[in-house]
Amino acid sequence: MLSTAGQVIRCKAAVAWEAGKPLVIEEVEVAPPQKMEVRMKILYTSLCRTDIHFWEAKSQNPVFPRIFGHEAGGIVESVGEGVTELAPGDHVLPVFTGECKLCAHCKSQESNMCDLLRINTDRGVMIHDGKSRFSINGQPIYHFVGTSTFSEYTVVHEGCAAKINPLAPLDKVCVLSCGISTGFGATVNVAKPTKGSTVAVFGLGAVGLAAAEGARVSGASRIIGVDMNSNRFDQAKKFGVTEFVNPKDYNKPVQEVIAEMTGGGVDRSIECTGNIDVMISAFECVHDGWGVAVLVGVPHKDAVFKTHPMNFLNERTLKGTFFGNYKPRSDIPSVVEKYMNKELELEKFITHQVPFSEINKAFEYMLKGESIRCIISMKE
Amino acid sequence: MLSTAGQVIRCKAAVAWEAGKPLVIEEVEVAPPQKMEVRMKILYTSLCRTDIHFWEAKSQNPVFPRIFGHEAGGIVESVGEGVTELAPGDHVLPVFTGECKLCAHCKSQESNMCDLLRINTDRGVMIHDGKSRFSINGQPIYHFVGTSTFSEYTVVHEGCAAKINPLAPLDKVCVLSCGISTGFGATVNVAKPTKGSTVAVFGLGAVGLAAAEGARVSGASRIIGVDMNSNRFDQAKKFGVTEFVNPKDYNKPVQEVIAEMTGGGVDRSIECTGNIDVMISAFECVHDGWGVAVLVGVPHKDAVFKTHPMNFLNERTLKGTFFGNYKPRSDIPSVVEKYMNKELELEKFITHQVPFSEINKAFEYMLKGESIRCIISMKE
Repeated sequence: MLSTAGQVIRCKAAVAWEAGKPLVIEEVEVAPPQKMEVRMKILYTSLCRTDIHFWEAKSQNPVFPRIFGHEAGGIVESVGEGVTELAPGDHVLPVFTGECKLCAHCKSQESNMCDLLRINTDRGVMIHDGKSRFSINGQPIYHFVGTSTFSEYTVVHEGCAAKINPLAPLDKVCVLSCGISTGFGATVNVAKPTKGSTVAVFGLGAVGLAAAEGARVSGASRIIGVDMNSNRFDQAKKFGVTEFVNPKDYNKPVQEVIAEMTGGGVDRSIECTGNIDVMISAFECVHDGWGVAVLVGVPHKDAVFKTHPMNFLNERTLKGTFFGNYKPRSDIPSVVEKYMNKELELEKFITHQVPFSEINKAFEYMLKGESIRCIISMKE
Repeated sequence: MLSTAGQVIRCKAAVAWEAGKPLVIEEVEVAPPQKMEVRMKILYTSLCRTDIHFWEAKSQNPVFPRIFGHEAGGIVESVGEGVTELAPGDHVLPVFTGECKLCAHCKSQESNMCDLLRINTDRGVMIHDGKSRFSINGQPIYHFVGTSTFSEYTVVHEGCAAKINPLAPLDKVCVLSCGISTGFGATVNVAKPTKGSTVAVFGLGAVGLAAAEGARVSGASRIIGVDMNSNRFDQAKKFGVTEFVNPKDYNKPVQEVIAEMTGGGVDRSIECTGNIDVMISAFECVHDGWGVAVLVGVPHKDAVFKTHPMNFLNERTLKGTFFGNYKPRSDIPSVVEKYMNKELELEKFITHQVPFSEINKAFEYMLKGESIRCIISMKE
């Protein structure tokens, strides 16, 4: 096989030409990686709700035509100038937020919010030269969150690629690029429930189920799942959820329901919906003296968090987290190892699989609420 | 000397007969300690703003006649039935909030908010029998927060008395019963600034200065004091404050001023005013990625804490604390040892001293803003 390094690669990509319209599989040109960039062959990608959110473009800047996709697994094809930590053949997970290893955030042990490579949903180009690496007959096609994995080949900044164990099955660990790590990390890195503790999880989508998985792995004795859709309970049991609360079933605030169930509140709560009222409930349902609530869901830009300050003075803690507080390059390889060591189950998150040619089906499964994760195989 | 155990003791106490009126030194009768209670001779007491707050009784239930006082040092005179951890002659600090060692809060390593003996400002009697131990000619005089230290002898629940090193000078360590431990603990136990970090302290009264002392002891490189009264800056320098911000000097929110001074925000902030707008500023001035804000000041009952939830999602943490998260019996003896080992300076908090007969002068010094702590000597 001839090397493709330094060459433009022609390959298939699923292009979103307009907001809300089905993706179209097109032949695109993928330029070689530039300074501090890597080009990778994507083998598997999965669909996350964030892709749908920006594809719908209901309350964001529309950036089209664009190649979506940010949960994936692939193999490095070639690297640009200055790249030292990756080489062709390395197995990698592209990540929507990066780790430059040089800024104050990357140097802090407490933060993963890299100044240089923090998620930017409005930018459709590479930071090195402000240009796209994708084109069709000379027309640029924009990137999405620095990953654009709905393409057989993509180009990402070195800081947005986590090098992982080459033995890890990419059709499974690809889901660790975003949602599963976000929820799992929110619990194990931020909420940190101790063995035997009680945990409430608000919102039982993929992120919430991953948060529950984190509580299960941590040895929580009671995991209370909260969702407006009772149909999700059976599925949630597989992720360790032991009790289910549907706020619609009660005439009082759900935080009061949970306080009564638990003798004053849960030890930890994790909010995975982004709804501001749910955020407030998730905070107010933790026990005084030691309760910790963790916010994961992304709120509306006009949302206001409101509570009585005595809820804090009574020794409750409220924290937010971003990507489960994982530094992508430093920490994600160890999450992959957790899967390899059978400490973290990924198969149960994967409910559907489609070939790349049928990528629009993955959108349908998620929009209908049928899937947790649908894996899109680029090889088929 | 004949033992007074089991006897009613007649002694002097400063009685508040009415809200806002000068205290009157009266001869009171102090009944013997009942089940789980101890009677102690108070040697030194100091005045805290909380005494003034409830003496003024502007927005609380008026409970009069009452003996105020809750920062003090004394010696156990006798003990009631069931008391096992204290004996006559023990040196003790009475504390306004207790530690029963049996409830879920006392058993939790994270909480100091004892279910049985948590502060109750409305109750003027002992919990054992709902009666007062103080009387004048048969008329009961009410207790204050279970301590009532403006009396030569007082009765407290065993759980509200911390046994300390008998070599510790009670005229100094008595200030550890409330304000100084509250502020110092808020920093060292809850905010936990690391060496070289930046800390903002909002409100430079005794609690705020103690919070600054905690930051100084922790090795913070910059301690930014925030107060509406610039006259407090010179004094604050003794407590390690290196920079001063008076919000009145700026046309923008103080959180923006602090973010500009510090390249994005401080590592830790401690709020010691109880003003809700200041609480919001204290939270919003911490750095994204790792900032922790700690609320100490007690807010108005109708206050509402409001902020954009993205301020949490960007990895900021907000916590509240009560009595610096110290368990009074388990932890306060070690704070006394910090003073004995010269790791914590107490002398600089003590700006005034008066004999018991002039206790009303202590009120004047604090009301005029002249004192940090005024020690009242019962012996003179």
